[in-house]
Amino acid sequence: MNFGVIGYGYWGPNIVRNLVGLEGSHVLAIAEINPMARARAQKAYPGIKVTESAAEIIKSPEIDAIAVISPVWTHYDLAKASLQNGKHVFVEKPFTSTTGQAEELINLAAQKNLKIMVDHTFLFTGAVRRIAKLIEEGTLGNLYYYDSTRVNLGLFQHDINVLWDLAPHDLSIMDYLLKTSPEAIVATGEGHLNGHEDVAYMTLYFPDRVIAHINVNWLSPVKVRTTLIGGEKRMLVWNDLEADEKVKIYDKGVQITSREGMYELLVSYRSGDMWSPQLEQIEALRQEMHYFVECVESGKEPFNDGKAGLRVVRMLEAASESLKKRGVLVEL
Amino acid sequence: MNFGVIGYGYWGPNIVRNLVGLEGSHVLAIAEINPMARARAQKAYPGIKVTESAAEIIKSPEIDAIAVISPVWTHYDLAKASLQNGKHVFVEKPFTSTTGQAEELINLAAQKNLKIMVDHTFLFTGAVRRIAKLIEEGTLGNLYYYDSTRVNLGLFQHDINVLWDLAPHDLSIMDYLLKTSPEAIVATGEGHLNGHEDVAYMTLYFPDRVIAHINVNWLSPVKVRTTLIGGEKRMLVWNDLEADEKVKIYDKGVQITSREGMYELLVSYRSGDMWSPQLEQIEALRQEMHYFVECVESGKEPFNDGKAGLRVVRMLEAASESLKKRGVLVEL
Amino acid sequence: MNFGVIGYGYWGPNIVRNLVGLEGSHVLAIAEINPMARARAQKAYPGIKVTESAAEIIKSPEIDAIAVISPVWTHYDLAKASLQNGKHVFVEKPFTSTTGQAEELINLAAQKNLKIMVDHTFLFTGAVRRIAKLIEEGTLGNLYYYDSTRVNLGLFQHDINVLWDLAPHDLSIMDYLLKTSPEAIVATGEGHLNGHEDVAYMTLYFPDRVIAHINVNWLSPVKVRTTLIGGEKRMLVWNDLEADEKVKIYDKGVQITSREGMYELLVSYRSGDMWSPQLEQIEALRQEMHYFVECVESGKEPFNDGKAGLRVVRMLEAASESLKKRGVLVEL
Amino acid sequence: MNFGVIGYGYWGPNIVRNLVGLEGSHVLAIAEINPMARARAQKAYPGIKVTESAAEIIKSPEIDAIAVISPVWTHYDLAKASLQNGKHVFVEKPFTSTTGQAEELINLAAQKNLKIMVDHTFLFTGAVRRIAKLIEEGTLGNLYYYDSTRVNLGLFQHDINVLWDLAPHDLSIMDYLLKTSPEAIVATGEGHLNGHEDVAYMTLYFPDRVIAHINVNWLSPVKVRTTLIGGEKRMLVWNDLEADEKVKIYDKGVQITSREGMYELLVSYRSGDMWSPQLEQIEALRQEMHYFVECVESGKEPFNDGKAGLRVVRMLEAASESLKKRGVLVEL
Repeated sequence: MNFGVIGYGYWGPNIVRNLVGLEGSHVLAIAEINPMARARAQKAYPGIKVTESAAEIIKSPEIDAIAVISPVWTHYDLAKASLQNGKHVFVEKPFTSTTGQAEELINLAAQKNLKIMVDHTFLFTGAVRRIAKLIEEGTLGNLYYYDSTRVNLGLFQHDINVLWDLAPHDLSIMDYLLKTSPEAIVATGEGHLNGHEDVAYMTLYFPDRVIAHINVNWLSPVKVRTTLIGGEKRMLVWNDLEADEKVKIYDKGVQITSREGMYELLVSYRSGDMWSPQLEQIEALRQEMHYFVECVESGKEPFNDGKAGLRVVRMLEAASESLKKRGVLVEL
Repeated sequence: MNFGVIGYGYWGPNIVRNLVGLEGSHVLAIAEINPMARARAQKAYPGIKVTESAAEIIKSPEIDAIAVISPVWTHYDLAKASLQNGKHVFVEKPFTSTTGQAEELINLAAQKNLKIMVDHTFLFTGAVRRIAKLIEEGTLGNLYYYDSTRVNLGLFQHDINVLWDLAPHDLSIMDYLLKTSPEAIVATGEGHLNGHEDVAYMTLYFPDRVIAHINVNWLSPVKVRTTLIGGEKRMLVWNDLEADEKVKIYDKGVQITSREGMYELLVSYRSGDMWSPQLEQIEALRQEMHYFVECVESGKEPFNDGKAGLRVVRMLEAASESLKKRGVLVEL
Repeated sequence: MNFGVIGYGYWGPNIVRNLVGLEGSHVLAIAEINPMARARAQKAYPGIKVTESAAEIIKSPEIDAIAVISPVWTHYDLAKASLQNGKHVFVEKPFTSTTGQAEELINLAAQKNLKIMVDHTFLFTGAVRRIAKLIEEGTLGNLYYYDSTRVNLGLFQHDINVLWDLAPHDLSIMDYLLKTSPEAIVATGEGHLNGHEDVAYMTLYFPDRVIAHINVNWLSPVKVRTTLIGGEKRMLVWNDLEADEKVKIYDKGVQITSREGMYELLVSYRSGDMWSPQLEQIEALRQEMHYFVECVESGKEPFNDGKAGLRVVRMLEAASESLKKRGVLVEL
Repeated sequence: MNFGVIGYGYWGPNIVRNLVGLEGSHVLAIAEINPMARARAQKAYPGIKVTESAAEIIKSPEIDAIAVISPVWTHYDLAKASLQNGKHVFVEKPFTSTTGQAEELINLAAQKNLKIMVDHTFLFTGAVRRIAKLIEEGTLGNLYYYDSTRVNLGLFQHDINVLWDLAPHDLSIMDYLLKTSPEAIVATGEGHLNGHEDVAYMTLYFPDRVIAHINVNWLSPVKVRTTLIGGEKRMLVWNDLEADEKVKIYDKGVQITSREGMYELLVSYRSGDMWSPQLEQIEALRQEMHYFVECVESGKEPFNDGKAGLRVVRMLEAASESLKKRGVLVEL
């Protein structure tokens, strides 16, 4: 399977490195507008054609699939042109700038019988896979809440705010784990420097009183990557910055009991052992690229397909609307 | 100065212990409706009168001041009766259930020339005092955001939700540090057990694009007490669970510069040393009780007076209104 | 059972508080030479006789047992006199200054049919009890090593070095867990201030190639209380400063296999889950005092008896000898 | 400057990568006996000659310097042959298996006017450079102790014990920081698997009552890389596993004062702020390779020269002797 990669900035080199290392995949060409990045690409991969022109790659008859690793606002045009030229597409997250664009691409791919995969890399980590398994097996019981903090200093983006930059990670994970869509979204935030929000908060109301919250911030002096998931039976902390013990499951819970003749309900706590399962040691991105090749070759629809990308964009779009009005409730 | 203490549940014993240990203060009586708590009080303090009747204490001519350490919904009636009987009052946080009640008590105290102090204990900790000094001296520069996480397992309250239980700490600290009031508030949350919200989030929009956020949760498997404060010059992390090094100041910042002829602004990062100042080793509550006695005796108005209590209640009231409507923006 | 307590300095108040709170035990008298400490004792316990004279207590016919909570060099004389006067004795660790003294006291108690208990408080903590159970049940497999770090800033002792001050904790725990005695001891260290070693290290060679090591230090800027125990099957970390998750068991191991025809042995690693059991929430000292009363009343020999105290003193004595010669091997 | 690299196992690839990336240096050839490692080298560097024969490289007239990155027991022969063939040598730590070998190589290099550099990589890290500066500037005052813990699970070595594997890091750092040599060494330890010690402890007595201690262990379930350095004025903790804040300086101290008429000395504690300086962000190995090229070209003697390597081997040799006799004191 022959790949063309568009974009060799921050993330592109990782995509190329993994595609090059993957059995059955070849990178034929890289397109990049920044001349310094082009020089780096050419030095690292003397055997790959490096060009300024994305169009050249998109039109190349030798290329089967295009990886679009460029800024968000370019995704729609590049992916559309790729699909129109009969290429499968792998698109960086977030999928597109609007839900309309996402829907159009999904339809186009369906007509052309081509695959879209959106780069929700975290779904391929040992941590998320294990958490998904714990939820599926009922280890946590019915879920109560999902609460993620994803803060650090920078990197500021010039075309998008902190919500579009960092929240797609959480939204795609949440979408994968909760297997349901939010009913309503509230987002608040503030920008202090270049007009884009650099601090933002997002609440998502899911069915059955499940609530999710995301705290993203480009102005934090410390890096935090922590998610709490509370369930009826057990609770979980995922700290992605821990070298080992990233996921800890607490045998803790709260129960409501009513004593006869008592006018008030009693809350009782249960506290037990903590347990940290060993996670698969896999490079998530490599796993994801392998899965893309597999899906294209077998015709299987990836779980992180255009529709998954659309669901994330829909949440971001609703959050943007809410944010603009300082936290109005946006129903979905 | 002679004290009567109403309420000997979770927090009352700490109030009594500190008042007993304080030079110039005497506890003459304790009122408590729970017979088991009364027995504990009497055993610990054989010399203090322990009674079921709050009214008895409030009317006692020997008593100068009443400490109201009972559930929130009783604060207004007990404080009002105390003031009407010519007693100074020390009231547990949150001050009252409504702003109307708070205003009435403030007016009544003014008429009677009596003092009200609201138990915003955190304002007397070494950490908050030091942070206040850092902000006043301009060490952080103009503030960008205030972000607090205060989560743990329980203790569930039966009469109030998690916001009224835990957020008063943050709101009183924020009020003290920012020295300004929010323009608008958004609160979201969900209840899973007894009808009261057990997970809640609150965003406060302050003037000059300062944003504050509070994350409170009774269903967290781990205890977190962390506040991030971002400023133009420096940023700060306060982790109240650290034995030492509770407050860390980071010489980190972000600056916007515009290069001539460039259409886009450049964001530059600055990163320097971290510094953790030694904090005063004081028992906050003891310090606060001492300050109450001092204010009553000198006629000085405490900074944590009824008006400070009112400001916190106003924020809670607005948050409740927002929460009820799943996150509507409430302007103040 | 009526107690007399000798010594009301740093640790004595904890002993008195626990004995007072314990059903079936009464503190009749406290002896203390420091007048300020005597005043504190009398203020806290108006109903207890407080005296300067230890002899007075030792001779009192109403007293059944003496708790000796004074400096190490006084233990022998006070315990001996107590036993001679027919009292059971509870002695602060380390038991005595020499093995000779310990043996004499053990024999005297045996003749008089009296009990000696040495205050090895840690043996009554939830952590040590759980670790003991894990070892007994074979969860760790055959043990490889025991490695403890116990460092902090001060408190400097004037009559003993850091080894006699801090190592008794580790030695008593080790004695309890390993259920065997060391064959040889090496101790190194240095003193920088008042002539006593303030930094010291101790290696203990046990049978079957089990090795133990203790790192004690009065000059550390940070407090550390961490013990690693390595076994054939699993390994354990006990961090006593953690609020929760004090004990963590790692399903990790190393195995030696020999491949046919290979001249070298292969070491293979096994890595699995981590697990942190919930520990009993007990106040160790209360548990210990209760056990002392129970042993005296039932005639049962405590496991932390004079012989356990002697074993610890024997290790300290050997370590002192080694330390004096800068680390000579002392065989036991 | 043209390099030949001998050994492409665990560390060799890092050496090659850095030499390739360095301006003014070229890697002409790699020698490696393992065919699989040779294949990896050839694939990664198609332009470099990869051979089985070290001799071929050592004799190549085009090569100016040899990097010996093979097992310890091969260092002497390979370095000697390289020097005899007029090559400068960069040798992996520990320098040689014996002090005799080290001395011979030093003399040979001196005769031939060639440079030897021993790969004490840590000396080029931001952390060690900063600590050295703090000591030189007197920030810590006179030193009291140096205490390092370097433990983890594996990697077991087949030809050397844990002391020869891990302690060279600490010994080279200590040698660099303390700028003096130990007077005596005591080492203890035990082996549980393949005949080599896998757990070991080392005490070094330096002049002026400075004591150093190293704890190395291949059987620890957790990875620890922590060094405490205690000084008269301040104390320091270096935790190399922290992403940020690797070095923390504590304004803490202990002082001895004698009060008039008092028979005992008083120890007083001083406790102040903690401070964590920002460290240089450099890749240590790159810095070191650059320094090697610079030394060779300028004729400057590197501070991590053969003599520095010899000092480390001398300490290891003494430790081995002590270890064999279960902790006998070996004077240097």
